[in-house]
Amino acid sequence: GVNEMKIYRIAVIPGDGIGKEVVPAAIEVLDKIAQLDGSFQFEWTTFPWGCDYYLETGKMMPDNGIELLRGYDQIFLGAVGMPDLVPDHISLWGLLIKIRREMKQSINVRPAKLLQGLPSPLRNPHNFDFVVVRENSEGEYSESGGRMHSGQDEIAIQNAIFTRKGTERAMRYAFEMAKTRRQHVTSATKSNGLTYSMPFWDDVFAEVAKDYKTIGHTTNHIDALAAFLVMKPENFDVIVASNLFGDILTDLGGAIMGSIGIAPAANLNIERDYPSMFEPVHGSAPDIAGKGIANPLGQIWTGKMMLDFLGYQELGTKVLNAMEATLAQGIKTGDLGGTATMREVTDAILEQLS
Amino acid sequence: GVNEMKIYRIAVIPGDGIGKEVVPAAIEVLDKIAQLDGSFQFEWTTFPWGCDYYLETGKMMPDNGIELLRGYDQIFLGAVGMPDLVPDHISLWGLLIKIRREMKQSINVRPAKLLQGLPSPLRNPHNFDFVVVRENSEGEYSESGGRMHSGQDEIAIQNAIFTRKGTERAMRYAFEMAKTRRQHVTSATKSNGLTYSMPFWDDVFAEVAKDYKTIGHTTNHIDALAAFLVMKPENFDVIVASNLFGDILTDLGGAIMGSIGIAPAANLNIERDYPSMFEPVHGSAPDIAGKGIANPLGQIWTGKMMLDFLGYQELGTKVLNAMEATLAQGIKTGDLGGTATMREVTDAILEQLS
Ligand SMILES: CC(C)[C@H](C(=O)O)[C@@H](O)C(=O)O
Ligand SMILES: CC(C)[C@H](C(=O)O)[C@@H](O)C(=O)O
Repeated sequence: GVNEMKIYRIAVIPGDGIGKEVVPAAIEVLDKIAQLDGSFQFEWTTFPWGCDYYLETGKMMPDNGIELLRGYDQIFLGAVGMPDLVPDHISLWGLLIKIRREMKQSINVRPAKLLQGLPSPLRNPHNFDFVVVRENSEGEYSESGGRMHSGQDEIAIQNAIFTRKGTERAMRYAFEMAKTRRQHVTSATKSNGLTYSMPFWDDVFAEVAKDYKTIGHTTNHIDALAAFLVMKPENFDVIVASNLFGDILTDLGGAIMGSIGIAPAANLNIERDYPSMFEPVHGSAPDIAGKGIANPLGQIWTGKMMLDFLGYQELGTKVLNAMEATLAQGIKTGDLGGTATMREVTDAILEQLS
Repeated sequence: GVNEMKIYRIAVIPGDGIGKEVVPAAIEVLDKIAQLDGSFQFEWTTFPWGCDYYLETGKMMPDNGIELLRGYDQIFLGAVGMPDLVPDHISLWGLLIKIRREMKQSINVRPAKLLQGLPSPLRNPHNFDFVVVRENSEGEYSESGGRMHSGQDEIAIQNAIFTRKGTERAMRYAFEMAKTRRQHVTSATKSNGLTYSMPFWDDVFAEVAKDYKTIGHTTNHIDALAAFLVMKPENFDVIVASNLFGDILTDLGGAIMGSIGIAPAANLNIERDYPSMFEPVHGSAPDIAGKGIANPLGQIWTGKMMLDFLGYQELGTKVLNAMEATLAQGIKTGDLGGTATMREVTDAILEQLS
């Protein structure tokens, strides 16, 4: 019936460093939104996995971690990594990338948008608003490769592997998204230098584009595209990129917004057969962890993306509006040139929502 | 004797598009410098290779092209590529990349510097001045890989291959350069995502760093590093990067300087057993070719790098100063927000030099 309360069971992995601070802050915001709406609520279950867990147990998550997570609707993650204590290849491949792969979160979506009240490092930023659709399951991040010989003779090989299925899936997702936005997709390539993977990427893009006659499409080499994001970010709508290129472009997106601390991300299982994972672009920032000064906006905006994915786009927009209103009041953390604590920023957003 | 005139025999490849315009402009500047100095002169031999040549002959250069070029002291190149007429993989791999490889130009050096009079797109640019040392012979730009199956089953593989020799050579060059600059080297890595090539890269970097105890060193992931170049480019001195990462970072360097049209580059054979090639970062820009409005500064600055490599650092500095003085007078082309023609910019620089 219409008065039934919908429950979303969310697995929460605060992870390391500031993840442990910003995740609870974002949960407060999401709970507030649910309460205001009244038709649904979240049920949060926290898993204390990450580098501390590794230092105690020798594992980033228990052996049945993936199985446990599969029982939830979505995953809300903070940040993973304590490079001084645990090598990145252990912490990331044992938790973050493992979840992305095992849950078939093959699409990573990362928006970048000039926010009111947030000073971009660009001199004269026009009103940019683009989304990077990053292939999230293969490409340059393969586990294929090796090292051979030692000393002066050593060589290392890394194989980038692109499948038609993975490539096409990301591209179709990008074109579908463009339909709901400004009707344009830009493909990040480097077919002039990488002469097998990227010509393939270009061929698939050209073919997929044929199925979307009303959507404009452009191809740019990754080097030029990186430069364009600095020089004219307002020219882009949806950008589709390989795993590595998407990784680079989205950090750039964070930079031109004014801080990596603000950039959100969603690792999507678009078939919805396993949970998706919502995780901001920023890392665990061990240097400022535990001080109450971390910027919660990246995690809160990531929460907005979870609302969108659950079908509550209007509520998602409310969250983003509350963030912008808070920024416009000058209530912001140190990374954005402000003096507010994480608590103060969070409270201001909660108040905007009321 | 001291009054002997030194002659440098330079092979000139204007190439395509605006290359045909900016190369003659830069040659005027270099001739002027030589004339003012009086101890040496250039002997220029022009080779009309490029896409037009390809459309006539089916080749980007004649079969004995490499052999011919080996007879010269250095190579001065404009730009290669006319993607609407000749596919990039033909034009670039048949000329530009072919020369880089056959001449063992294993190091690509690309400076980025805030120039007086040049408006950076950054709001508040501090006085940044960094150099990217790009590995130029291997890594991601291997000719190794392939495509298999077709249609929905197609896969593409691109192998990145790093040797100890190539990796170490670039890193040692970077550390040696840092000795003459601000004593710091940053390594661009992505060992958290690319788990064979980049951990190898990191290992070699750590080892090489041990031989340079007085030089500071830092490692950044490429995604964060790209963002840092936008947020705090003044933090960098020498950056050492793989072929692909160097490619991306140097276009970003051009972007934050204010235009890709200004960024210079040198493809160096540091053993000096074959000619090096001096070639700006920008491409052939077919859309503005033939109009006399191309920005000659990238090519002229590239000429300065050739002067440096020939041992005339003081003269090189004179060229850069003349460029800055011209910019400070507001004499600049459209890409830099000015209204001057290429001719006017070139004349102003020539006048500054007198
Ligand atoms: C044209 C292309 C192959 C080339 C490269 O990637 O090396 C260019 O971008 C450059 O940086 O010189
Ligand atoms: C931590 C790292 C493996 C990860 C990636 O490269 O995917 C991160 O940079 C990101 O963008 O989520």
